[in-house]
Amino acid sequence: MKVIAYAARTAGGALQPYEYESGPLGPNEVDVRVTHGGICHTDLAAIDDEWGLARFPAVAGHEVVGEVVAIGAAVDEVALTIGQRVGVGALAGSCFRCESCISGRTNLCPRRDALVLRGDRGGFAHHVRASDWRHVYPIPDSMPSEHAAPLMCAGTTVFSPLIANRVLPTHRVAVVGIGGLGHLALQFLDKWGCEVTAISTTEDKQADAERFGATSFIASREPGALRAAAGSFDFVLSTVSGDLPWDDYLGILSPQGRLCVAGVPDRPISVSALGLVSEAKEIVGGIVGTVAQTRQMLDFAARHAIRPEVEMFALTDFEQALDRVRKGNVRYRAVVDFT
Amino acid sequence: MKVIAYAARTAGGALQPYEYESGPLGPNEVDVRVTHGGICHTDLAAIDDEWGLARFPAVAGHEVVGEVVAIGAAVDEVALTIGQRVGVGALAGSCFRCESCISGRTNLCPRRDALVLRGDRGGFAHHVRASDWRHVYPIPDSMPSEHAAPLMCAGTTVFSPLIANRVLPTHRVAVVGIGGLGHLALQFLDKWGCEVTAISTTEDKQADAERFGATSFIASREPGALRAAAGSFDFVLSTVSGDLPWDDYLGILSPQGRLCVAGVPDRPISVSALGLVSEAKEIVGGIVGTVAQTRQMLDFAARHAIRPEVEMFALTDFEQALDRVRKGNVRYRAVVDFT
Repeated sequence: MKVIAYAARTAGGALQPYEYESGPLGPNEVDVRVTHGGICHTDLAAIDDEWGLARFPAVAGHEVVGEVVAIGAAVDEVALTIGQRVGVGALAGSCFRCESCISGRTNLCPRRDALVLRGDRGGFAHHVRASDWRHVYPIPDSMPSEHAAPLMCAGTTVFSPLIANRVLPTHRVAVVGIGGLGHLALQFLDKWGCEVTAISTTEDKQADAERFGATSFIASREPGALRAAAGSFDFVLSTVSGDLPWDDYLGILSPQGRLCVAGVPDRPISVSALGLVSEAKEIVGGIVGTVAQTRQMLDFAARHAIRPEVEMFALTDFEQALDRVRKGNVRYRAVVDFT
Repeated sequence: MKVIAYAARTAGGALQPYEYESGPLGPNEVDVRVTHGGICHTDLAAIDDEWGLARFPAVAGHEVVGEVVAIGAAVDEVALTIGQRVGVGALAGSCFRCESCISGRTNLCPRRDALVLRGDRGGFAHHVRASDWRHVYPIPDSMPSEHAAPLMCAGTTVFSPLIANRVLPTHRVAVVGIGGLGHLALQFLDKWGCEVTAISTTEDKQADAERFGATSFIASREPGALRAAAGSFDFVLSTVSGDLPWDDYLGILSPQGRLCVAGVPDRPISVSALGLVSEAKEIVGGIVGTVAQTRQMLDFAARHAIRPEVEMFALTDFEQALDRVRKGNVRYRAVVDFT
């Protein structure tokens, strides 16, 4: 099949139409016609080559919703049918052979198929091929496609740590950073039964945070605001990609509390050993969910009517959308209409 | 009661006899006549005032074994009797009223009674008073007192993380640093059913490590040695108090592996965020056990005949013992005979 994609030809370059031939469909593969595509910070990292890993032309995009148009010979027919509405996220496949996959941890497979690292075969395109059908997720009927798209990466990135870290409804939880990830984390945690505090640099997002389910709000740049919250939280979910005063964030944890780093700061995370040891605190990395967790996330979001707030963009406004994400101006997730 | 202790009068000063009057015994208190006292790095930190928290005269000592000589009116008679052989460790009491204590986490009580921070009432003395009887541990009959002493702090510090972190016998585990803590960790983990790798800077301690139960050994200063072990361990227990190349130690963890910091390095712990996040790795602080965990440790050590290797010192050689600990020359724990 001839695929029309939108590629950056150089680091930071404007997206331009780009065609490739997708070739024969493998037995476990699935082709999806893209109708909606969310934009994630990671897409910009790929387009702008922040990690030095990009290959050009670079087709980013990994929050895809669309319609199944072709399924491989080995695909479970009960799972997927032609015409079905589905989502594809950050991972479009894993090997199902390695120790990680066999233990259910498909998100840790050494051969995981990260859409954003594929080069020219990403999701900013009219078609995308998942390398394994088990990573193609049926979208619940009640969920509009433009709301489903951001759930495919942002949603699972903040939801899977709740499962992986066994967060309980009795836990006092804080979400750091109220953006694409954070505004979903607040909604999930509210429905999870937790008392949730939103932490943002200024008071600008307080009203929004409360609308998303936060019961308290901390403006972290107010002098002494974090100190005043010392020892308050059993679980702190950081969704920011910038640097944080990490010792202050260890400080707001209760004894044995856990700080989960779900955003990826570009600078090292540095903490005092005594701050970590004296009350047995924990710092853990958060990643996108396993196949099972992503299914659970979609089911949970549908049951609780969790809705990303999206700004919709036409294909002709793709650059404008990217620019708003680059500047952190989107409230709260940008979605491009590919139809 | 008049207590004869051994106190530093100034930071780093030689220990000299020092007397104080212990006053009336509170209802939950227990007086112990000290027969054996282990020496821990933390004692030196107190004597040398490394943390700036010391009060002089400073009586350190928090690995005490001895005999009950007086019990308060409220002490459970089934638990302790006069003349009974007991141990007292880093914590000699907690409030049994706060959220931490009520949930069993007596080691996180804000009012925990840390012997080493008491000033002149520490364990380097002929008598020590525990502020709560529940922190006074009967020593199993089969266990010699000179072996029990180091278990009271070093033992529980490396044992409780196995419980707190739910380490399983199927886990691949590494112990970093083969000293007072590490030589006990190897023995516990061997009996825990784990495959255990010892990591030390050079090969000097390889034979000892294998004798303690290590099945593999890594000399970490050999170029490329840690890189060669990338992704190998589900649980890494660091017992060192110096700086480590933390990213290399994150690197030897398997996906979702956990690094437990049981020693207290004096410099910040700094890791790359991507190293933490990309495989959802974890860094956790380790502390001495709860009352329940310390009891379990003593029971486990007795059942499996776990034996600290000790160098015994007479009271007259106290300074020599401290000096050997300061220089890291003790193999593997110094114990002073107070009788």
